[in-house]
Amino acid sequence: MTWTDYDSGSCSIARTAGILADRWSVLIVRDLFNGVRRFDALQDHLGIARDVLTRRLNLLVAEGLVDRRPVAVEGRRSRHEYVLTGAGHDLRPVLVAILDWGDVHRSGRDGPPASLRHRDCGEAVHAHLVCDAGHEIDDGAGTRLVPLGGARLRTP
Amino acid sequence: MTWTDYDSGSCSIARTAGILADRWSVLIVRDLFNGVRRFDALQDHLGIARDVLTRRLNLLVAEGLVDRRPVAVEGRRSRHEYVLTGAGHDLRPVLVAILDWGDVHRSGRDGPPASLRHRDCGEAVHAHLVCDAGHEIDDGAGTRLVPLGGARLRTP
Repeated sequence: MTWTDYDSGSCSIARTAGILADRWSVLIVRDLFNGVRRFDALQDHLGIARDVLTRRLNLLVAEGLVDRRPVAVEGRRSRHEYVLTGAGHDLRPVLVAILDWGDVHRSGRDGPPASLRHRDCGEAVHAHLVCDAGHEIDDGAGTRLVPLGGARLRTP
Repeated sequence: MTWTDYDSGSCSIARTAGILADRWSVLIVRDLFNGVRRFDALQDHLGIARDVLTRRLNLLVAEGLVDRRPVAVEGRRSRHEYVLTGAGHDLRPVLVAILDWGDVHRSGRDGPPASLRHRDCGEAVHAHLVCDAGHEIDDGAGTRLVPLGGARLRTP
């Protein structure tokens, strides 16, 4: 069996990429990680069309990555805020890996716009590939892909 | 200054997400990592429309993530193959983090379809957040974002 004998869509990358379906979804999740919670604030910061933001948020809520919660505001109609669920927070390594790549390959001449730091020691935080025995993986030659029970062969 | 005072588009996540603009781009990069090199093979495995694949590959080539190389085939018109550049290979932690999330949150009842293993020791490889002092970061409370020289305030 080779890689292309397996069904493309059954792969965990395909399933995840189907949720983070476009750059807006990634940026919405990024802003939620950074504490932006209100629809209007997301819309204003991202410069996204309201109908696109509505559709993306609805998808993220339906997929269980985001909670939509009512917020009572004195004297005004009820509002909602959006917060990441546990599954949403589990996207943190994805966002940090994307951040790392952009810092290295798409910084302008002034360097990266921001650095994610460890609160305790102040050092920069990056996504690393590490095996369960604790070995750091530096390049692709060090890994191989093993099919498991959830693998699906392509149907002709 | 708060997060929303900064320009959304100048962020390294936004710049990277603008290249990996949709799920097709992610799946093309995944297949290139797995050794699929020819247009027809990519098209067949992904089930993607040819014009969409052409546009996505052209973008990935223009952005320096993929090399398009001529391949001489005896007695046939010249062909091309597509291979990841160094910058393309640097996306590995992004792909593995996406894979990890899907394995945890989108596996069917048969479990994950595949496992990425360390070739030397056979243990599973995952994306971890680690600071430059070697501390593993387990949750978001352990990090803070520090603006650097490349940060851009929003223009009103």
